[in-house]
Amino acid sequence: MIKKYIFGNPFPTHATVENAEICNHKLPYFKTDENGNFTLNLDENDIVYGLGEQIRGINKRGWKYVSWCSDNPDHHEDTHSLYGAHNFIIVSGKELFGAFFDYPGRLTFDIGYTKINEMSVHAERNNLAVYIITGENEKDITKQFRRLIGRSYIPPMWAFGYGQSRWGYQNEQDIRIVAEKYKEREIPLDSIYLDIDYMERYKDFTVDKNRFPDLEKLTADMKTQGIHLVPIIDAGIKIEEGYDVYEEGVKNNYFCKNENMEDFVGAVWPGRVHFPDFLNSDAREWFGGKYSALTELGIDGFWNDMNEPAIFYTDDRLADTLKKNDSLTSKNMGIDEYFIFTGMVAGLNGNVGDYDKFYHNVDGQMIKHSEVHNLYGMNMTRSAFEALQKIQPEKRTLFFSRASYIGAHRYGGVWQGDNKSWWSHILQSMQQLPALNMAGFLFTGADTGGFGCDTTEDLMLRWLQYSLFTPLFRNHAAAGTREQELYHFSTVEAMGEMIKIRYSLIPYLYSEFLKAALNDEMLFRPLSFDFANDEDSRNIEDQLLLGNELMITPIYKQNANGRYVYLPEEMMLVRMKKHDDFKTEILPKGHHYIPCKLNELIFFIRKDKAIAMCTPVDCTEKIDIGTAKLLGYQGSTYTLYKDDGISHDPKGSLEISVLKTVDI
Amino acid sequence: MIKKYIFGNPFPTHATVENAEICNHKLPYFKTDENGNFTLNLDENDIVYGLGEQIRGINKRGWKYVSWCSDNPDHHEDTHSLYGAHNFIIVSGKELFGAFFDYPGRLTFDIGYTKINEMSVHAERNNLAVYIITGENEKDITKQFRRLIGRSYIPPMWAFGYGQSRWGYQNEQDIRIVAEKYKEREIPLDSIYLDIDYMERYKDFTVDKNRFPDLEKLTADMKTQGIHLVPIIDAGIKIEEGYDVYEEGVKNNYFCKNENMEDFVGAVWPGRVHFPDFLNSDAREWFGGKYSALTELGIDGFWNDMNEPAIFYTDDRLADTLKKNDSLTSKNMGIDEYFIFTGMVAGLNGNVGDYDKFYHNVDGQMIKHSEVHNLYGMNMTRSAFEALQKIQPEKRTLFFSRASYIGAHRYGGVWQGDNKSWWSHILQSMQQLPALNMAGFLFTGADTGGFGCDTTEDLMLRWLQYSLFTPLFRNHAAAGTREQELYHFSTVEAMGEMIKIRYSLIPYLYSEFLKAALNDEMLFRPLSFDFANDEDSRNIEDQLLLGNELMITPIYKQNANGRYVYLPEEMMLVRMKKHDDFKTEILPKGHHYIPCKLNELIFFIRKDKAIAMCTPVDCTEKIDIGTAKLLGYQGSTYTLYKDDGISHDPKGSLEISVLKTVDI
Repeated sequence: MIKKYIFGNPFPTHATVENAEICNHKLPYFKTDENGNFTLNLDENDIVYGLGEQIRGINKRGWKYVSWCSDNPDHHEDTHSLYGAHNFIIVSGKELFGAFFDYPGRLTFDIGYTKINEMSVHAERNNLAVYIITGENEKDITKQFRRLIGRSYIPPMWAFGYGQSRWGYQNEQDIRIVAEKYKEREIPLDSIYLDIDYMERYKDFTVDKNRFPDLEKLTADMKTQGIHLVPIIDAGIKIEEGYDVYEEGVKNNYFCKNENMEDFVGAVWPGRVHFPDFLNSDAREWFGGKYSALTELGIDGFWNDMNEPAIFYTDDRLADTLKKNDSLTSKNMGIDEYFIFTGMVAGLNGNVGDYDKFYHNVDGQMIKHSEVHNLYGMNMTRSAFEALQKIQPEKRTLFFSRASYIGAHRYGGVWQGDNKSWWSHILQSMQQLPALNMAGFLFTGADTGGFGCDTTEDLMLRWLQYSLFTPLFRNHAAAGTREQELYHFSTVEAMGEMIKIRYSLIPYLYSEFLKAALNDEMLFRPLSFDFANDEDSRNIEDQLLLGNELMITPIYKQNANGRYVYLPEEMMLVRMKKHDDFKTEILPKGHHYIPCKLNELIFFIRKDKAIAMCTPVDCTEKIDIGTAKLLGYQGSTYTLYKDDGISHDPKGSLEISVLKTVDI
Repeated sequence: MIKKYIFGNPFPTHATVENAEICNHKLPYFKTDENGNFTLNLDENDIVYGLGEQIRGINKRGWKYVSWCSDNPDHHEDTHSLYGAHNFIIVSGKELFGAFFDYPGRLTFDIGYTKINEMSVHAERNNLAVYIITGENEKDITKQFRRLIGRSYIPPMWAFGYGQSRWGYQNEQDIRIVAEKYKEREIPLDSIYLDIDYMERYKDFTVDKNRFPDLEKLTADMKTQGIHLVPIIDAGIKIEEGYDVYEEGVKNNYFCKNENMEDFVGAVWPGRVHFPDFLNSDAREWFGGKYSALTELGIDGFWNDMNEPAIFYTDDRLADTLKKNDSLTSKNMGIDEYFIFTGMVAGLNGNVGDYDKFYHNVDGQMIKHSEVHNLYGMNMTRSAFEALQKIQPEKRTLFFSRASYIGAHRYGGVWQGDNKSWWSHILQSMQQLPALNMAGFLFTGADTGGFGCDTTEDLMLRWLQYSLFTPLFRNHAAAGTREQELYHFSTVEAMGEMIKIRYSLIPYLYSEFLKAALNDEMLFRPLSFDFANDEDSRNIEDQLLLGNELMITPIYKQNANGRYVYLPEEMMLVRMKKHDDFKTEILPKGHHYIPCKLNELIFFIRKDKAIAMCTPVDCTEKIDIGTAKLLGYQGSTYTLYKDDGISHDPKGSLEISVLKTVDI
């Protein structure tokens, strides 16, 4: 049951699509006050799930989280905010309920940080809607919530293929080389990503003609190899006379305004930019229409970036900083002056004060950005999604975004942001998956191999063994870091086998994804969601249930030759070097140490279940469901969801197969 | 057996104290060239141990490490250098040998980073001594190496007590409050640390008379409560007319020189400073003598900081940066200019180029700092140690340092640097311990609770459960972070019990420490060092053997209610809430899941062993060995090493007790 409680005058976020019953009684569970505080005592054994894309564990106890979409490459234990604002939690223990704090500004969740046995949620202003959801168990509560917020975005099936990306592909030749090298190595590939360098001086919807003289032909050539090009789109629009997007935006007042009603100026990649006012429906429609500049060249997928929005600096703050620095650096600069000096320069980037300096036009009302900050990225992806539905209504377009709010899950996926080539970031990604699914984000995954910092060969191989289960499966790295296309590594053969295993699994993964999307369910779940009465399951932070058949247990520690696994019931261990070279073993409920060599994938099939595996091919469009065989318990069956993988409304093309296990 | 191989013209580092046989044959194991490269193929199952204070695991495979003493608060997975340069490794697998690369400049260990099955060591110049040590096993090789480098520093026994520190104690009153609050809570305490604020404007060997009007009296008052004050000493000497240390240093040419033979200027806490030339024996003697300014006030312990040396900026680089920034910021600053601008400001700190700009006078020869960089911190602590041996020859003084090179272990301990309040930093500390011990550093420990970032209550409690086993046991935090003196937390009672357990264990820990120091052995060892034939032991990265009786198995994950433990043989699990409230259970060899509540300490006693535990007291000087009881296997005995805890040469006061187990 869902009840909605209204505090003050909430801004309409469009997070939800269904109307919930508005309750005028006192909010249950929480103590409230008039300052936007919601306080709850936590029992020693309570778990708090949720918060989507956030740091720390599946159990969020023991930290202070701030919902404030941030361009933050430091996904550290002491980080407070990442790119998403996903304000849905489930408290499970003495009580069991879900709570969604629908508030688009700064919202703080102090979950046992200040006081170890108290949760305190604080909205910067007391204008918000709180939804309380009760149900049988965590899955039921999540399902009700997911119905409230609307069906999750479903990408085209090719988006389940493996993708190669790097901030640093400079020209057409770089792209062709990636495609060739993967072909040479016979490693499947469905997409190559274009990062900011494909544009003409970082101007959205332009293509640099020197470096990409004929993007349409390149796109077509790639498509003949089954490879989709996926360009990036940034939020900021370069200020440049003669640039049509800039000029149209100025002319039609599509950009955010400063307090003097002039177009607000921030700086990002191209230097000074204006920010499209995505909360203005006219601006949203206009910006979305611009994607056609690329779809007309054959592009059918996009990633929306820098849409927190990231701001490297503003002119005013830069001028203040330089002035202050002059006075600091002209003297003997000791500890105090030095930290102010370096802190001010470092603090130009993403300075929260800048978000008080611009405004949105929402139905004629000027709304200060900081009060609705967390809706910006969501409405950028909405802009693209809604426009593309009109431009090419017959088919799905790939979209995923960096910034998001609940509601954005209807328009696209999210990638898990600018992570690092750290072993701990495999685990961090895994721990976010169930929380993202709770918030509606099913199409997601981490930059495999790590975005920032230099990867290592063993990290890449282990990371592949994890990411090959995530819907978004993209290898991506930052400029200046070690090259991490798989063909750079001596273990490329083992890596290639992992990609082939992914392709064997795509029909199954797609099937489970679609079931989850169409039924408002989670693709990835903590063990405790399915084994509610099993006390040990509540402690497991590094294993996840995937769909209805699998449990994934990645290795995320360097030089590990195995790992501990907890089985909440009997399961079948699969130890796989190639899609057709594997061993299975049935293990009883309990704790196990599972040896696992670097070139081995391990995962588990749940009791009396089986999964479909097909013969791997070099891109998703060649997948032949006819080659499907079942892997799992003898005598079990698997119901495969199947459609054409591209039609906009997948309900129209349901086709159910029932497969029986055979020895393969 | 130890053999020494000489390449080029090595600088005399004084890392070793014994002469090793110089071998004129080809260096075994490694391929060498004339450019300082040493290359070795690694077998799949080889482990590389060592490198002392470094990031990543006990097994160092899979990263590139750079020995370059650095003031680096970012102990991240992608960090290359921390504060120490400990160039001793053991390769264990197909071959078994130790290698010490005695080189005081930049030395790189690429251990399977560039090529997964190759180790490549590179010295910036081909002037170094390489020692190859062969032996029966890892312990034997380590012992031979330790004998070569000389006996490890032994602190006074009171240094094994619990210490409270914070960068932020501003005055006498702050210190008295800490002492009082610990007394009130009846939590034992042996030391309170004075960070930079006790000095007069960050000038070494001065005391701010406004904030500490009578440090001698304060020191005496504290000592009546059994509390020692431990002030910090920094490497840089403030440039200020009338400041005696500055003036003497200038007059006598005791400071490092620039290329024009003027005193080199860098900037740290006080702003502009000169750096004492610790590689000059006269300067070393002079600086060491200065410590008497504090010992005359009753001070008997010091920590030496900023001695990599840290350099926040130099005038030249600052001027260049500001000039360049003017040109960058005066235009539309896009991606390239922006990253140069912010990068240059951030890059002022610890800029490696600055280390080429100054020189040491070594026996009349001017040596460029960068060629001997890693010796600077070592010689600062040597300076203090040698001087104090003369000033107060009768007793040990507490010394520990941030920067170090092998050899520094003879003069003092090291703390593990400016870590963070991260769960992963419990594990990181633990993984460094055996490597630090291999390099001779026995007196060490992490800033408990974490130095940077805000700690949490559960992190503090778990961290205490780990640190209560480390010789240096200090709670320390940075300015601006959450207060973490134990009395700030609601679980202070459970925390106090952990401190009392520490005090119960001090006679045992001191005994094992002294045995290790006097016998050139390790206090903390990987399981594989004692169980060489046990394959599973080689994978264990989060358990350590302590002394001859214990195995420690800390919990280092948030919200964990237990952990997995591997027993290489039968052991006794101890589950302890208070020193006199515990349960024991004998568990067989193998993998176990051990539940463990937040207020519980778990550790293991090895088969047929026992440890001494005394009645806890409020400071080490009150410890009564007469209260010792044995905890462990029935019928086993423990030989306790015991001395007066303060005499300079502990061999003079050996006294052996044999205790028999009794039920306690």
